[in-house]
Amino acid sequence: MAQDPIDQLEATIHARKGADPATSYTAKLFARGRRKIAQKVGEEAVETVIAALVEDKAALVGEATDLVFHLLVLLAECDVTLDDIRAEIARREGVSGIDEKAARKA
Amino acid sequence: MAQDPIDQLEATIHARKGADPATSYTAKLFARGRRKIAQKVGEEAVETVIAALVEDKAALVGEATDLVFHLLVLLAECDVTLDDIRAEIARREGVSGIDEKAARKA
Amino acid sequence: MAQDPIDQLEATIHARKGADPATSYTAKLFARGRRKIAQKVGEEAVETVIAALVEDKAALVGEATDLVFHLLVLLAECDVTLDDIRAEIARREGVSGIDEKAARKA
Amino acid sequence: MAQDPIDQLEATIHARKGADPATSYTAKLFARGRRKIAQKVGEEAVETVIAALVEDKAALVGEATDLVFHLLVLLAECDVTLDDIRAEIARREGVSGIDEKAARKA
Repeated sequence: MAQDPIDQLEATIHARKGADPATSYTAKLFARGRRKIAQKVGEEAVETVIAALVEDKAALVGEATDLVFHLLVLLAECDVTLDDIRAEIARREGVSGIDEKAARKA
Repeated sequence: MAQDPIDQLEATIHARKGADPATSYTAKLFARGRRKIAQKVGEEAVETVIAALVEDKAALVGEATDLVFHLLVLLAECDVTLDDIRAEIARREGVSGIDEKAARKA
Repeated sequence: MAQDPIDQLEATIHARKGADPATSYTAKLFARGRRKIAQKVGEEAVETVIAALVEDKAALVGEATDLVFHLLVLLAECDVTLDDIRAEIARREGVSGIDEKAARKA
Repeated sequence: MAQDPIDQLEATIHARKGADPATSYTAKLFARGRRKIAQKVGEEAVETVIAALVEDKAALVGEATDLVFHLLVLLAECDVTLDDIRAEIARREGVSGIDEKAARKA
């Protein structure tokens, strides 16, 4: 498949917004509301922190993927897209490029 | 530029692993070690949660970008790549596709 | 001194609500507002988690004390007292006593 | 009852360390181990943060009590007592008293 799995996941998530909560975990998350989705992002971040410190690489991949998934659901809930994040990264990289150059000179 | 800014950010982060801490924030983070990088991921997740609940979209974009950045640093620190996460997403999407079909039938 | 240091800390925190932010860290926290105080509680919890998993007992005592302090500031900010927490614990302990008995019978 | 409910809760928690996981939630937590107990502290902190920002006082009392309970379990798991926290608070209050005086003079 040619498409980035992260974008594909975002598309799947968007398609489930407003769907019957009985049909998928994602639809159920949207139905529970922003407060609950945000809580899940916090919980998965804690699990990612723990996996990075005391578990193996496979566990970290699993927890980080859970974090990315719930973050994408939270962004979708708030009408923010992955492209908004990409634009912000690109904007900062530009700034940071200048920054780094200054740091190297100093 | 044709490349995905997220991949470009990952490449930049990898290039700074082991660099002089005085040259960039990222190099300094690596120098402070895994415990501190993991802590930053937890902190940025808390800020993302708060932004989603009580701030505007611009603030959420900023905090979510901070979270993605620090997560990429943590993954790099643990020798996990964004492609490992993509592979895990693709693997789950396959499983989930089957799941959803079952859910629709039920 | 006869008083519980936790109650004494709560009294000190209450006394600094509304004080000049220049006079203490606590007064500065109140001045920064609920969003920032809540963020600090989240951050100190992450540090407590990390200390419990990868640091020594002295570090855990330090981080847990930071967490208790910031939690007391958050409760004060929200007009909740330590006695409200004590009352809730007492209420649950009563329920839990019954619960445990049922569990032992089962 | 004359005793502080927080100390009573700590005593109850200590009594359940090593007990049959089937008899209580606390015994089950200890059986699941430090990694899981630490994770619960992180999760309850996220819920406390959210309650303080977007829920009412009753919800905050409930979440903060959950956080205190799980923190006491984590401390017990790590052989740290509430009195260790009290001693640390007393030590800092002494330092902070001097600090505040200096701040008032400046």
